[in-house]
Formats: sequence, C-alpha cells, structure tokens
Amino acid sequence: MNDVIPEYEGKAKQMLAGVDASQMVQRFKNSATAFNGVKKAEFEGKGILNNAISSLFFELLESKGVRTHFIERPNDRDMVVRRLKMIPLEVVVRNVVTGSLAKRTGLAEGTLVEPPIVETYFKNDALGDPILCDCHVLMMKAATAAELAELKRLGLQVNAILRTAFEAAKLRLVDFKLEFGFDPTGAIVLGDEISPDTCRIWDQDGRKLDKDVFRQDLGDLIEVYEEVAQRLGVKVNV
Amino acid sequence: MNDVIPEYEGKAKQMLAGVDASQMVQRFKNSATAFNGVKKAEFEGKGILNNAISSLFFELLESKGVRTHFIERPNDRDMVVRRLKMIPLEVVVRNVVTGSLAKRTGLAEGTLVEPPIVETYFKNDALGDPILCDCHVLMMKAATAAELAELKRLGLQVNAILRTAFEAAKLRLVDFKLEFGFDPTGAIVLGDEISPDTCRIWDQDGRKLDKDVFRQDLGDLIEVYEEVAQRLGVKVNV
Repeated sequence: MNDVIPEYEGKAKQMLAGVDASQMVQRFKNSATAFNGVKKAEFEGKGILNNAISSLFFELLESKGVRTHFIERPNDRDMVVRRLKMIPLEVVVRNVVTGSLAKRTGLAEGTLVEPPIVETYFKNDALGDPILCDCHVLMMKAATAAELAELKRLGLQVNAILRTAFEAAKLRLVDFKLEFGFDPTGAIVLGDEISPDTCRIWDQDGRKLDKDVFRQDLGDLIEVYEEVAQRLGVKVNV
Repeated sequence: MNDVIPEYEGKAKQMLAGVDASQMVQRFKNSATAFNGVKKAEFEGKGILNNAISSLFFELLESKGVRTHFIERPNDRDMVVRRLKMIPLEVVVRNVVTGSLAKRTGLAEGTLVEPPIVETYFKNDALGDPILCDCHVLMMKAATAAELAELKRLGLQVNAILRTAFEAAKLRLVDFKLEFGFDPTGAIVLGDEISPDTCRIWDQDGRKLDKDVFRQDLGDLIEVYEEVAQRLGVKVNV
C-alpha cells in the first residue's frame, strides 16, 4: 500500500485517487465505529475481511446485472472502483424488525418484514444520519422522484440476490445499508461496500454475526466476521 | 359541564360519551404539555380559546367540502362531534422549515417548503410519536396505500383552505397536525382539533403565536392565543 493522501477519509474506509480520473482506490480500514462515531476501536483483519466479502458480493451482483463500482481487488486492503458522484443517501433494506425499526414501530425484534421495505437516510454525520421520508428527499433535492424510485427498485433487487447467497450459507440477511452514485453516463451505480459492517447477519439460531457484536459487546468481532467469510466461501488469511 | 367520566383522556382534551353512540363530546382542557408530556402547565382560558378557534376552522372546512367530525359547540369548553374510529397517525403538513424538519434536513429555519409536504407520525406516546415513512405505515397496517394517499390529499386540501384564512388575518400558517378517523360509512373524516396547540402560526415579523410560546418560554400563552382568535375574527371571553 502506498501513502497517497486520501481524497476522502470515512470511518471505515479511505478513498484514494486511482490510475486515472475515472477510477478510485477504496481502502478498507481496521477501524470500527458505532453510535455515529462515539464508540471506536481497531480490529486487526477487519479491513481484509470486509474487502474480500464486499468483492464477492459486488462480483455476484454484477453477474446478475446490477451495476456496481467494483473493478478489481488488487491487494488485501484495496478495491479499485469506478469513480461515482455519490448520492447523499443511505438506502437501507430490511427483512426483519430490529434496531431503529423496532424502536420506531414498537414491533417485536425478529418480526418478519414481508414484503421487505426500503428506507432512506440522509448521509450527514453532523445531523446524525436522520431518516428521510420521500417528501424530504424530494424537497432537499437529494434525488428526483425517478431516481428515488430507481434506488428503491435497486435496493430490493440487491436484497433478493444477497438473501439467496446468505441463505445458501445458512445465514439470515436481516437488513443492510447501500450507497449509490452516478457514473459519467448518469446511470445509478452501487458504490460503497457490502460487509458485516453494513449488513445485519444472524445465524439460524439468531446469533449476531455483524457489527452489532461490537455495538453490543457480544464477543470477538474478527471471529464472527471470519465465520461469515468462511460460510460464504470467501478465502482470506487475516 | 357535567362530571361524566371520559372515555378517553388526552393531554389537552377529554372525550366523553355523547347523546347517542354516533356522537361524542370533545372537552377542551386548560392543560398544556410539551416534549411528549415532560413540560406541563395550566392556562386559564386555553380550553375556551381552542374550542372557539377549532370550531371556526371546522365550520370553514365543512363549507369547502371537507368532512369533519364537528357538529356543534354547545358551550365554551365542549364540542359535539361525530364518533370516529381514529387512524393512529398524526398527519403533519408543513409550509415552512422549523422544528424537527430543520433538525432532520439541516435547512435553515424559515426556509419555504414549496410545494408543501405531508409527514405522518405514529400516534404513540410510549414510542415518542416517531415519524413514519410510507413503508412503515403500510407494514404496520396503520393505513392502506389508498387511505394514506387520501390522508395526504386531505392534508394538502386542508392546508390550502387554512392558509387562505390565516393570510387574510395577516398570519402565516407554518405547519400543523391533523388527525383523521373513519365514520360508520368508512369515509375518512377530519377529527381532533385545529388550534394554536396544533398549528405553528407566525405573524408577518416571524413572531410566534402558538404553543412554541410555551415550549420555548417566549411570553404569555393566553395573550398570543387571544391575539390569534381576535385576528381570525373569533369572539370569545376568556
């Protein structure tokens, strides 16, 4: 890894300039944060695991016709991606009630969400990433009505593909967060990552195998991320 | 006023049995609460003012073809209303950014919301009346898609009528909360109240003439409610 100064430094990744203006390098950090950055820690191996798992999912999605920013994984910690103009929304797809959805609705943790729902959040740390209804997205011009409909369609399409992959690994995809951007043609393309940092994953007994292990002090984060990788057939040495 | 035990006691009103099963008596209390009941006080005259102002608005809305629960105002503190099966949503219409909309969007207080937006909140004190996106309303079966569309349409129709009335009184209707229910035919009918407890009202200099005076300790609540009543042409002795 080189020491290029990142163009953008997030809580779990750095975005570095790529070989040309059309590309970037997405570098996966070992940092974990929760509660909007209030809780922080370093986990040796997390970056490698999330890069490998994300790469698997992006390749799977591409094979099913979903456009993603993934180009290649040149080394353990880096992913070469298409440069996108990011949409300032977090698109959250939910299959099971937990977390903020349980608090909002009063429905019991573990209640099935059928059909799955797609929520949007304003990607804005200073505001605490608040949930946005469609009317807010439109008034803020975060997306047009057509773009918002496309984000929801893509969220559900990605969900259907990922659920099948998780089910084959005897895992439940409870919910997950996606981020999208525009490529130079104006097409909406999936960016960011898909990993146990951004998905809630339960095993068939309801054991949590994702960043909730860190949020809720449930055990060794790296052990559970390794278990997810191994069950999904991702080979990685951390 | 009789001493009938209310069927339902809210923070600002009691609902009493009416002369028959099709009616109820809505009694306006002098209590004011804010921050989900954390801040409380009594204001002599508030019940009378809110009953008079609400009656004016319900009669105006009925005259414009909006169905409301209003039947008559038999005395200062009571309103006779049609009994409705209430929908557990607060329907909030916004013309100007303030309050939670400013916190959610980061937009400056006072920014125009054009076109106006309609938000829905889950009427549930224990959960803190959380905002609900359309997907939550549908998954919780709080309303069907057709009912939700009708609630939004009615919210905007009521807004257009009320805005005109407030503008004629040289007041700005910033935002307001409505509650709806079903009458025995299954029609969606406007219930609850429309008063400075449930509307944000600013004068042309941005001075607040509503419950924010209580929330934010900005002055004498009764004086500003009386000013709203007087400007709207409501005659009432408190």
